[in-house]
Amino acid sequence: MKLRKYNVTVVFEPEGKKVEVPSGSTVFNAAKEAGISIRSECGGKGTCGKCKVIVKNSRAVSKITEAERKHLSKSEIKLGYRLACQTIVLQNVTVMIPPESRLESRKIQILGLERKVKLSPLLKKFYIILPKPTLSDIKPDLERLLDVLSRQIQNVENLEIGYENLKKMPNILRDANWSVTITVWNDRRIVAIEPGDTSNYLLGFAVDIGTSKIVGHLVDLTTGRTVAMGSIENPQIIYGEDVISRITFAAANNANLKTLQKLLINGVNKVLRETCRKAEIDSSKVYETVVVGNTAMHHFFLGIEPRYIALSPYTPALKKQIHLIAKELNLKMNKEGIVTTLPIIAGFVGADAVADILATGIHESEEISLLVDIGTNTEIIIGNKDDLLCCSCASGPAFEGAHIKHGMKAVTGAIERVQINPNLEVKYETIGGVKPSGICGSGIIDLVAEMLKNGIIDKCGRFNSKIKTKRMKKDDGMEFIVAWDNETVTGKAITITQKDINEIQLAKAAIYTGCSILMKRKNLKDRDINRVFIAGAFGSYLNPENAKIIGLIPDIPTEKIKVVGNTAVMGAKMALVSKEVRKKAEEIANRVRYLELANDPDFNQEFLKALIFP
Amino acid sequence: MKLRKYNVTVVFEPEGKKVEVPSGSTVFNAAKEAGISIRSECGGKGTCGKCKVIVKNSRAVSKITEAERKHLSKSEIKLGYRLACQTIVLQNVTVMIPPESRLESRKIQILGLERKVKLSPLLKKFYIILPKPTLSDIKPDLERLLDVLSRQIQNVENLEIGYENLKKMPNILRDANWSVTITVWNDRRIVAIEPGDTSNYLLGFAVDIGTSKIVGHLVDLTTGRTVAMGSIENPQIIYGEDVISRITFAAANNANLKTLQKLLINGVNKVLRETCRKAEIDSSKVYETVVVGNTAMHHFFLGIEPRYIALSPYTPALKKQIHLIAKELNLKMNKEGIVTTLPIIAGFVGADAVADILATGIHESEEISLLVDIGTNTEIIIGNKDDLLCCSCASGPAFEGAHIKHGMKAVTGAIERVQINPNLEVKYETIGGVKPSGICGSGIIDLVAEMLKNGIIDKCGRFNSKIKTKRMKKDDGMEFIVAWDNETVTGKAITITQKDINEIQLAKAAIYTGCSILMKRKNLKDRDINRVFIAGAFGSYLNPENAKIIGLIPDIPTEKIKVVGNTAVMGAKMALVSKEVRKKAEEIANRVRYLELANDPDFNQEFLKALIFP
Repeated sequence: MKLRKYNVTVVFEPEGKKVEVPSGSTVFNAAKEAGISIRSECGGKGTCGKCKVIVKNSRAVSKITEAERKHLSKSEIKLGYRLACQTIVLQNVTVMIPPESRLESRKIQILGLERKVKLSPLLKKFYIILPKPTLSDIKPDLERLLDVLSRQIQNVENLEIGYENLKKMPNILRDANWSVTITVWNDRRIVAIEPGDTSNYLLGFAVDIGTSKIVGHLVDLTTGRTVAMGSIENPQIIYGEDVISRITFAAANNANLKTLQKLLINGVNKVLRETCRKAEIDSSKVYETVVVGNTAMHHFFLGIEPRYIALSPYTPALKKQIHLIAKELNLKMNKEGIVTTLPIIAGFVGADAVADILATGIHESEEISLLVDIGTNTEIIIGNKDDLLCCSCASGPAFEGAHIKHGMKAVTGAIERVQINPNLEVKYETIGGVKPSGICGSGIIDLVAEMLKNGIIDKCGRFNSKIKTKRMKKDDGMEFIVAWDNETVTGKAITITQKDINEIQLAKAAIYTGCSILMKRKNLKDRDINRVFIAGAFGSYLNPENAKIIGLIPDIPTEKIKVVGNTAVMGAKMALVSKEVRKKAEEIANRVRYLELANDPDFNQEFLKALIFP
Repeated sequence: MKLRKYNVTVVFEPEGKKVEVPSGSTVFNAAKEAGISIRSECGGKGTCGKCKVIVKNSRAVSKITEAERKHLSKSEIKLGYRLACQTIVLQNVTVMIPPESRLESRKIQILGLERKVKLSPLLKKFYIILPKPTLSDIKPDLERLLDVLSRQIQNVENLEIGYENLKKMPNILRDANWSVTITVWNDRRIVAIEPGDTSNYLLGFAVDIGTSKIVGHLVDLTTGRTVAMGSIENPQIIYGEDVISRITFAAANNANLKTLQKLLINGVNKVLRETCRKAEIDSSKVYETVVVGNTAMHHFFLGIEPRYIALSPYTPALKKQIHLIAKELNLKMNKEGIVTTLPIIAGFVGADAVADILATGIHESEEISLLVDIGTNTEIIIGNKDDLLCCSCASGPAFEGAHIKHGMKAVTGAIERVQINPNLEVKYETIGGVKPSGICGSGIIDLVAEMLKNGIIDKCGRFNSKIKTKRMKKDDGMEFIVAWDNETVTGKAITITQKDINEIQLAKAAIYTGCSILMKRKNLKDRDINRVFIAGAFGSYLNPENAKIIGLIPDIPTEKIKVVGNTAVMGAKMALVSKEVRKKAEEIANRVRYLELANDPDFNQEFLKALIFP
């Protein structure tokens, strides 16, 4: 039977790249068409199993083959994993290419500004030697252990012991000939009982769960130093670029929520495994994990119903720091280890913002600071040690390359820097220095700023039809050619369209409006701001001058602007190593005032003003 | 293919009845031969599924049939469940008949002496109405809830909330339109969040896990009254009558330990389900379970390695009261409900003994009391409010009918009362008033006492060959006919043998020795004892006069002896309804001194003395 061919659209994540191919193409070939390289050793015979991808809608592709069943585990099949070379596209479909199947790598910001803190981790180790029981000393194991510990910990009678440790204790004590190391959390709970003296290591894990990526630091709590770092795309991306689409998916039924939670936990586990592998330690030696993330990720991680974050009045399920046991969440660290989520501020200002504040120290400074953590959702905080005011703005995924005709994420092949000289010649740089396959966020901002400077677009964002250059062409609407067809991977020109310019206007206006309303409510002018911190992965590749030219951020002298990288994970790390920082985190979450932008009387006016380029 | 027939022995539990049948017989027919009735509606066609039994060694019987797979769940098959009518005996085998497959019922003591206590349960319910969130009041759900609760509970910021409740909270609050009932345990942890006002009920479960049976009380914590009771044979019995054989089985590998734990949890769940069914309530409304049991059952219930209890110096894993979450143990009550095990005293004096003390109040009385809880393992406690001394003796399963030729447990058809008049005629009563099929513990004690009185045996336990009666016969050795062959279910005479008498001597000597050594160590004579409490199911059917005649207990006036029934479960119930009683339980566990009998210099001498009938 011959199928009638028609054209279908395949969207590849995390790039967000779209491609049109005839129905009946394999996912592998569609990816090639889109300029994305997927690993393969067998050349598409289905025998190497390297080209694993995740397909969102299984009905949009051919049925799973025997070859695939050989290479995929049951749980992978359940999550939508397929082999790209065996999967035939029948309808429009979204396909996620997980990092292990990629030949290229995305730039993920795994470091950021960090402040030194005095080491005071909640975890402590005690190497103890117990007297052996005899017929005249029949004290039970646990009481025997607590007795010796009581010389080092106060109120030892209140020390909790988890079920897993209780079960293993009798055998460990005897196998270790009564000399063991006890790991205690917060003088309150026994986390581990290990044979012999293991007090030479004490490890924790700090992780930032972003909407688009997960970044983790494995930290030596005896020195406070990161011993290994790792990162991964957030595997939830297949259910939507932005948090709202994921919340909508999760709200449909409890199974969906569980799927999203599982994907997230799997993602965190992958980063944890990667860092442990790098550090050559067993993950059971990780005794605490401190988690930050925006409120939606925080809820997804905990498997808590997130829908009310998205519905007015946008109330989260909880605000305060909580502690769970690793096995409850299926986190692959020590089974009885502690999982701590830092407190959140509000429905759209999460624990990542608290961590940003901790890492930049704006809550302790006399100086007035403006902190902008740019992402699909942008958090803005303004103030100093006396008062901090924050808000959240839906800047959307345009800076991540979505909704932009040739947009893509900051992966190999993306145009990340652009210059246009007065005779309208275009110079660009790509990530990895290879042939371009699209433009990423920082490239788009450069491009719009250069187009403004050169009069290619006007202050309203409209193309200037008087400009004469071969680079301007009319297709559906006006567009400007950035890279000629013979320069690109796909052989097709990379352009920026009128629609793209408008998307950027909306995104930058959202952020600018947030800044300006916060400044208004705090009664501050541009000149009052002493420091600007641009946080987040996207911000790291941003040219601050160009960001000011397009009006993404207020017009503050560049020397006052500091690009600080992934401060969220650094703040989590600070909390991991310090009891005092955790207390600070609680204080910050309770003290920082939240402004609901949508509710502000000046919002509409400010937003319309911000749409115009400065 | 025709199998060559040979004879095999089938042991049926919990009766402990042995029967010899030709190989190739069905389990169903072997049971009939043994005088035990198993339920059946289809007459052995394998279609009704009523004749479920548990087979210990699957290789001793035929393979599972298709008919069985239809009626048994996967987890049942894993645990050794079969249909009796489909299972053919090939080798010697032990078969457990669970209560649901029985036509007869065993007398299980589900009540006992109980002292009134002032109600002060750790569980409390609060019906609260929360203000609805608005755009100007965006407090998160948990903080909103704690805020209102803080009017009724102090230090509400320390209140813990479990993972299950956290996940469900946002939807419950909104579905209930912000009016909910919060169940709080010990002012420390939120156990349940329920829509509307549910403060009219508050239920807990008290359970005694004995070596041979599990007894539970469903208790209304608002009144302190038992609303339903239930009981079941301990399903572990298939792995041994006594705790030592079960510990040996569990010590072989971790899977065995898990099997024994699972059987126990299943058993407790069955009693819980039964009581909830009787009370017509959903088991999710049970918020706390208080568990007592001997130390081995305590460890099995928690899944803790029990082998060290059985090895010198017999140290248990822990002594103190602990609290776990129901879902950790897979207990089918409220998932986030609390499971409390009362403290234990020593390796062979468990939480059941603590409960016995609580229920009889011997720890608060001026009077000197002797408490004897008779079972496969017998616990003895002596003293008063100033000092209590205890020990444990391996009385063995003889009083449960095991190791006795025609012994059986106290189920329908067991001879439970015996009188022999001077012309050596025997009168007996059976449980249920039916034809006898064996003799149970209380019947055996009566029988031995009557044989002593009538000179049929001498003080050393030897048959008196001078006695002339048709009831005396010589087979392997001497035996005495209790019921003629035409009086019994099986058509075979029920007798007591020389070996049986010796078994009883050993068992009663063990108990008597425990009493006499404790009295010696406390410097007490028979006349110093003001009260004797005989606890335990077996004790309930005991004739105290005859117990003294055979020297099971010291010679103390009968008016001072009180048979108190299942005080273990009553003590558990007292702890369930009262915070103060739990504190008392901790005090008792720490205060009661334990004497290791095997270690006592007088033990051998006292034991040899006690073997002789008084």
